[in-house]
Amino acid sequence: MVQLSSRLDTAFGALSDPTRRGILERLGRGDASISELATSFDMTLTGMKKHVGILEGAGLLSTEKVGRVRRCRLGPRRLEDETAWIEKHRQMVEARFDRLERFLERTKGNQK
Amino acid sequence: MVQLSSRLDTAFGALSDPTRRGILERLGRGDASISELATSFDMTLTGMKKHVGILEGAGLLSTEKVGRVRRCRLGPRRLEDETAWIEKHRQMVEARFDRLERFLERTKGNQK
Repeated sequence: MVQLSSRLDTAFGALSDPTRRGILERLGRGDASISELATSFDMTLTGMKKHVGILEGAGLLSTEKVGRVRRCRLGPRRLEDETAWIEKHRQMVEARFDRLERFLERTKGNQK
Repeated sequence: MVQLSSRLDTAFGALSDPTRRGILERLGRGDASISELATSFDMTLTGMKKHVGILEGAGLLSTEKVGRVRRCRLGPRRLEDETAWIEKHRQMVEARFDRLERFLERTKGNQK
């Protein structure tokens, strides 16, 4: 449970930054080296390495050194736990709105 | 586009904290005042107000002053954009793994 919670912390934290979401979208179109990513996002190599490190820590991308170049690719995690959490939350919000609607209808009924 | 991106930043950021996810889960079982939430999570009122403010800023809960008490409830946002983003990302990861699998099968085929 603590492990799941800490995984959710890290993944949602990683996704809360537009550049990091952009990196994942970019890697969805194909693998890239850190310096290619830095160029794409008009960022220093150091800045890009930081973002890549956070995404790698969250398991959202993995890196491999090929010769002198570090290649990035998507995965291994596929955000299953995050999807499950959000889905459960949506169901709770729906249920809440349903209850509210029924309550308002009952109240309206009583006023007739 | 900027608006959507900034909404995703705020929502994912709000969800990256276990106490804030806990507050949403608690409100899924029924509305609560800020002081009830503070007691439930063994937290000062000031600490709880900060978390509630972040969740309210992300549209994940709303508050209403009833007499001297501020009540919290889920909504109005239902995380539709976040679900869509994660779903698109999962599809990209799946597609990546499919391509890799096909590549490995072709390579194996060539080695026969």
